[in-house]
Amino acid sequence: MADREDRGPVEEPEEISPLTLNRLSFYLRCLRQLQEERVKRISSQDLAGRFNLSATQIRKDLAQFGEFGIRGVGYDVDELADHLNQLLGLDRRHAMLIVGMGNLGSALAQYLGFNYGAFRVVAGVDRDPAKVGRSLGSFVVRPVDDLPAVVRESGAEIGVLAVPAEAAQENCDRLIKAGIKAVLNFAPIRLKGIPGVPLKNVDLRIYLEELAFFLR
Amino acid sequence: MADREDRGPVEEPEEISPLTLNRLSFYLRCLRQLQEERVKRISSQDLAGRFNLSATQIRKDLAQFGEFGIRGVGYDVDELADHLNQLLGLDRRHAMLIVGMGNLGSALAQYLGFNYGAFRVVAGVDRDPAKVGRSLGSFVVRPVDDLPAVVRESGAEIGVLAVPAEAAQENCDRLIKAGIKAVLNFAPIRLKGIPGVPLKNVDLRIYLEELAFFLR
Repeated sequence: MADREDRGPVEEPEEISPLTLNRLSFYLRCLRQLQEERVKRISSQDLAGRFNLSATQIRKDLAQFGEFGIRGVGYDVDELADHLNQLLGLDRRHAMLIVGMGNLGSALAQYLGFNYGAFRVVAGVDRDPAKVGRSLGSFVVRPVDDLPAVVRESGAEIGVLAVPAEAAQENCDRLIKAGIKAVLNFAPIRLKGIPGVPLKNVDLRIYLEELAFFLR
Repeated sequence: MADREDRGPVEEPEEISPLTLNRLSFYLRCLRQLQEERVKRISSQDLAGRFNLSATQIRKDLAQFGEFGIRGVGYDVDELADHLNQLLGLDRRHAMLIVGMGNLGSALAQYLGFNYGAFRVVAGVDRDPAKVGRSLGSFVVRPVDDLPAVVRESGAEIGVLAVPAEAAQENCDRLIKAGIKAVLNFAPIRLKGIPGVPLKNVDLRIYLEELAFFLR
């Protein structure tokens, strides 16, 4: 459905940029909201209008991944949501392990968003003996020195870092060494990963910056 | 610097979309990294290459807000960072108040990212008498019933919701009634705001979904 002139530089589907990925995730979120409202079909124009997006961008992004939508009819909401789910790897379970069971780690373990749909927190470790042995949700906190065994036994794929900034790189390296497949870092420091193990640094300031824009 | 053909639909500067805002915030983050590395000048092509972005998109986004960059020379990194800072309203302080001082609220109050640069946590409230009176950073936790007085006395502009999902809408309404100017919601539920008070729902699953993509 995309106009050829609007596509800009041709991208390889394998080299998907972080911004495209962000947009696909955002589209999926919009589609889920439409599903809740029992909307069955939507045009790129209506989707754009409702969520304040660009229709051209939507068509361009989706055209990269196959033929979605019918000209003049629009997208089948359920079908497109299923495709995006699959494309984003959300059609199977992902087990997570949290390193650092302080305020942030405990909050993340309990956060509904982290125990919903494709994602489950299955293990937690801490270096503080006072925290080891505590029961949190479906797991008991274990010593950080047991990391290799915890990763193996729990089947955790994603390691979540909820440690202070100064301990983050060390624990990131330990996670990778223990065989974790991807790292999500909440420590306010940019970490270095290794090729083959995706690493995402979360910066919560981005949300504050968005709000600040509207407070000018 | 943008090619006229690549611009797509013309947008009003006032009606900036959430995705554009996201990108501007992302560009600013990239520029800060370049500043750390003492890079003085960068072309849109190099900026795009380094951070896996689209050069056309960068030029288009920035051209919306004035004349940045010189053809063939590129952007002055410091100048562009200053402009984006101003554009995003980050050239002045923003005081924040946290509602809910449990694990998440306490973690957010201590999170370096929330006490850095333009943003400061200046107050916290909770409905639990056991939490009221606790000292956290530069403030003492106060009862949620004192919200109007706390907003007035602290000068807080942004209210951060760190309460359970079922208490989020009620507390959002209280924040707005107490005179808060913007709301950042961490409860895993989509809240309804009112016109004139920007509301941002944070969904941490977006980060997991990005990682899941690379684990397919």
